[in-house]
Amino acid sequence: MEVYDYKDTFQLETGAQLPGLQIAYHTFGRLNAERDNVIWVCHALTANSDVADWWPNTVVSGGFLDPDKYFIVCANILGSHYGTTGPLSVDPRRGKPYYDRFPQMTVRDMVRVHQLLAAYLGIQRVKLLIGSSLGGFQCMEWALMEPDFAERTALIATTPVTKPWAAAFNESQRMAIDADTTYGDERPDAGAAGLAVARSIALLSYRGAQAYDLTQADNGAETDPKSPFTRRVLTYQQHQGKKLSDRFNAYSYYRLSRAVDSHDISRGRGDMADVLQGFRPKTLVVAITSDILFPPKDHQPLVDFIPDVEYHVIDSDFGHDGFLIEYKKLTEIITQFINK
Amino acid sequence: MEVYDYKDTFQLETGAQLPGLQIAYHTFGRLNAERDNVIWVCHALTANSDVADWWPNTVVSGGFLDPDKYFIVCANILGSHYGTTGPLSVDPRRGKPYYDRFPQMTVRDMVRVHQLLAAYLGIQRVKLLIGSSLGGFQCMEWALMEPDFAERTALIATTPVTKPWAAAFNESQRMAIDADTTYGDERPDAGAAGLAVARSIALLSYRGAQAYDLTQADNGAETDPKSPFTRRVLTYQQHQGKKLSDRFNAYSYYRLSRAVDSHDISRGRGDMADVLQGFRPKTLVVAITSDILFPPKDHQPLVDFIPDVEYHVIDSDFGHDGFLIEYKKLTEIITQFINK
Repeated sequence: MEVYDYKDTFQLETGAQLPGLQIAYHTFGRLNAERDNVIWVCHALTANSDVADWWPNTVVSGGFLDPDKYFIVCANILGSHYGTTGPLSVDPRRGKPYYDRFPQMTVRDMVRVHQLLAAYLGIQRVKLLIGSSLGGFQCMEWALMEPDFAERTALIATTPVTKPWAAAFNESQRMAIDADTTYGDERPDAGAAGLAVARSIALLSYRGAQAYDLTQADNGAETDPKSPFTRRVLTYQQHQGKKLSDRFNAYSYYRLSRAVDSHDISRGRGDMADVLQGFRPKTLVVAITSDILFPPKDHQPLVDFIPDVEYHVIDSDFGHDGFLIEYKKLTEIITQFINK
Repeated sequence: MEVYDYKDTFQLETGAQLPGLQIAYHTFGRLNAERDNVIWVCHALTANSDVADWWPNTVVSGGFLDPDKYFIVCANILGSHYGTTGPLSVDPRRGKPYYDRFPQMTVRDMVRVHQLLAAYLGIQRVKLLIGSSLGGFQCMEWALMEPDFAERTALIATTPVTKPWAAAFNESQRMAIDADTTYGDERPDAGAAGLAVARSIALLSYRGAQAYDLTQADNGAETDPKSPFTRRVLTYQQHQGKKLSDRFNAYSYYRLSRAVDSHDISRGRGDMADVLQGFRPKTLVVAITSDILFPPKDHQPLVDFIPDVEYHVIDSDFGHDGFLIEYKKLTEIITQFINK
């Protein structure tokens, strides 16, 4: 991981200011002489800049993020937990971490931070701008904010606007964090129990009933008349909740969740159809059949209105999480798209 | 509301004992001389014995719970908040409410309590045993525990076994209550904030994306560039959470939620298909197209194996909550079923 230390003041959409930024990033492969082999990856909610780690089987020879061919950049998003300025960063004005004073950011703020990094790295144009979920939100915003930055963009398991049901999932998660009375304390693990609940809730949207049936069935254990309250899935929810609260912080999670809710690429730009018709990059849209968070239907405006668009629906039981799991299908689709 | 005071010790499936029970119930209409016009209604998670109140347009002349024709009985379930013995009832051995010492009950315990009431009321057989959701769980259990009790049974938006995804929803809700550090305190509103979160989570399963799009869209408000974080649905989740925490208690909710997770009509009875093949009443199964909690697919074993069965799927956008909303379609289907 490398860190770009940006020394100027950064102003957010809300008007709040940060006195400088740290922008954590990873690169893989080499920038060629023509500087035309860049793939920029935008990561999702709780991921980090190490795309080779969180997106298995992609940053490999023959993968769609082939480091032998491409110069791959992935940067941690503003407000996150993995190196880029966020709630646990020290506020130089106070000499201690921001914690709950960290300002609320939007997806557009995240993109503007990464534009600073692109300028620092001397990257004016990328061959492919790719992201799934919240990563896709950033790709859309970037394509609209800087129409000539990306030659191509790949939008996977994502949506041009966060719909009410998805926002209700996020609100429930924030309510869980708020209900944890330690949230607000000036320590990194404030709200950890609430964060674990939030993750447990989020999982319900990442994988639907089909995926749970496949991976969390009791295989007969649930018919034990002596322990009717024991279910395999209960420990799964607890375990996954704890796993996130051990590796992330509630302040970052809360703000990222609000940023997701604020996502609407038409916000302040006019009619959604018109906005999408102004989309410049060649665009690949990939939805997943069983994704209940951002179902194929939510991708339809992208397909209907983006001028140069190609659409695939991956048949998978793994729901929204399918984007992390169905790498074989993604490799085929994305490789073809880049080389076309 | 009337209350039957049962003076004997009641033993639960777990072996725990309650020194007597109060069983709250409502009746509507009159028992005829032949005693063959009884409809017994089993209520769902947070409802009560006043079916005329929580199931609008049903206990009316011409409705499927027509009080001019039928003697309708609905009793509050064990462990609930509305008159039947539950966590806020006084434990006579301690001289104060049970609170967190209230024993965990199962759906079978709920049915056994209502069997005591039926005996007290002199009801040996009912024309129709009807329930939706957890109410349907009770109907199935009752039909299996006392095969000649119901001539007919109507199972609406329900399932013979709680599937992993539904249980994961419940576990997330219990995690939210556990994360509220007031839960465990000996007062009626202990865990109230956690309970509000639990309700907010539960709503996500009661209504899916379609219903939220219909009722919680922002109508352009979300495109206000000045307030990108304001969404109508956020206040909806907060409001609904608060509404439940004002009228229910976290101890009851926690136990009812675990009872739901323990639901499996095949538990201790052998193979699911065999169990259902032994089902005696004429059975009506009604599922709702957009129900994500207990989708039509979950009703299939009932339809495939119950010997005398009739199946309807109601086309509705309101998800699991459809059973409370689609009274016109239900009236048509159920009236026809009773009179056949």
